[in-house]
Amino acid sequence: MGTTQLETVPEPKYWHLRTVLSEALDTEFTVGEILPNERDLAARFGVARATLRQALEQLELEGRLQRRRGVGTTVAPPRMGVAVGTEQHAWPGGAGDDWQPVDATPEVPPAGVAAALETGADEAVHLVRRSLTTHGQPVAAELLYVAVGAVPELAAIDTSAGAARARAVLRELQRLELEGRESAVELGSARADDARQLDRLPGAPVLVVTTRYFAGGRTVAVSVATYRADTCRLTFGDSGGVEVHPDPQPQAS
Amino acid sequence: MGTTQLETVPEPKYWHLRTVLSEALDTEFTVGEILPNERDLAARFGVARATLRQALEQLELEGRLQRRRGVGTTVAPPRMGVAVGTEQHAWPGGAGDDWQPVDATPEVPPAGVAAALETGADEAVHLVRRSLTTHGQPVAAELLYVAVGAVPELAAIDTSAGAARARAVLRELQRLELEGRESAVELGSARADDARQLDRLPGAPVLVVTTRYFAGGRTVAVSVATYRADTCRLTFGDSGGVEVHPDPQPQAS
Repeated sequence: MGTTQLETVPEPKYWHLRTVLSEALDTEFTVGEILPNERDLAARFGVARATLRQALEQLELEGRLQRRRGVGTTVAPPRMGVAVGTEQHAWPGGAGDDWQPVDATPEVPPAGVAAALETGADEAVHLVRRSLTTHGQPVAAELLYVAVGAVPELAAIDTSAGAARARAVLRELQRLELEGRESAVELGSARADDARQLDRLPGAPVLVVTTRYFAGGRTVAVSVATYRADTCRLTFGDSGGVEVHPDPQPQAS
Repeated sequence: MGTTQLETVPEPKYWHLRTVLSEALDTEFTVGEILPNERDLAARFGVARATLRQALEQLELEGRLQRRRGVGTTVAPPRMGVAVGTEQHAWPGGAGDDWQPVDATPEVPPAGVAAALETGADEAVHLVRRSLTTHGQPVAAELLYVAVGAVPELAAIDTSAGAARARAVLRELQRLELEGRESAVELGSARADDARQLDRLPGAPVLVVTTRYFAGGRTVAVSVATYRADTCRLTFGDSGGVEVHPDPQPQAS
């Protein structure tokens, strides 16, 4: 394997290095393989360690590399497709929903959620926490805020906390007629508690999917789901979760 | 304004600083306002410049800050909602589609796209380039690959290149009955040409939406659309583009 000098390239050096490295990953490495250490890689490509690190960070962001403490940098498997929004008329917790209820507690929601639910500034709602695991890997964490008025019978149900209470809230939601839902996805960073649940450091890039559920002419629940951006691609559409897998980053000139 | 020492906090310093800064943005700054320089900020919070920069990068990733050359770091406006996938049964270029055709040329698509379109390894397809602008700001760039066999009459149309040819390809697509489409969204980084079009540096985080369009029992077109992750939130659902805006990053304890 030769040394590639990058001195004369007009684009940012780390970006050119990223492209060269990306091609090397395709041709010389297999999924799960551990990369040579940073010093050797920097020497091979004739770049400073800082440039190399920038290129590695880039490839990590793109889901090509994984960096794990005590293991090093490995070649990442293709991202997993996780279906969001394919069942347009289903409540969370319905049939075919793979999320695991963790617990439910009363909480005052953040201001934006309170505005959507039209609750008072200091009014508590049901906060259901759920998690999604695929192939034994934590994939996503959800905070589902449910207006107390939407599930009036819950007060009479004798489940004080934990997964049983979470299931009770979800069961009460199923009684309502779902009129529609509306989602948005954006880039965010993992909060400390989500990061722990997702096995990442705080601040790791995540895809945040916010969903409003409508019933009786108003928003009765708001879900804020945080997906690992390194390992997940979110699929949605009207073909019911058919896996889509063209190369999302064609490297045409 | 006092000095906040962060020495004794157990979570990563940059992460705690990010939270403190985020609160300061809410209470002390307005949208568009320029932040003090890094030296002053680092002194105010009693942290090293490197820690400060990590926290600023975090807030930029979250869309709270914008860094522009020659201007400095400013407080970002809320992200724009851009509807994707609300019109489940519309071809690109149909009524109500705000994308601007730029040009159309024959290109050999990346391997993943070729596999989806079931074209041969070195077979060219129509590549339509489009761009999306909102409030005068570039928001997204699209590469739309259309199988030559799907639009057979195009060969007879006398438009050699440019936006006119792009429109001709889209017009031919409208003749087909769209059987469905399937999308996926994931985190990516801007390629050099997209970066230029989006007014970003190569490698800037972007949301990549890949969409397959089905007609006649096969995939006839694949769209790879790259949205600025700093300024966009992508909305989808069955309520037709109603703006969803609860705080996507609730900072509950």
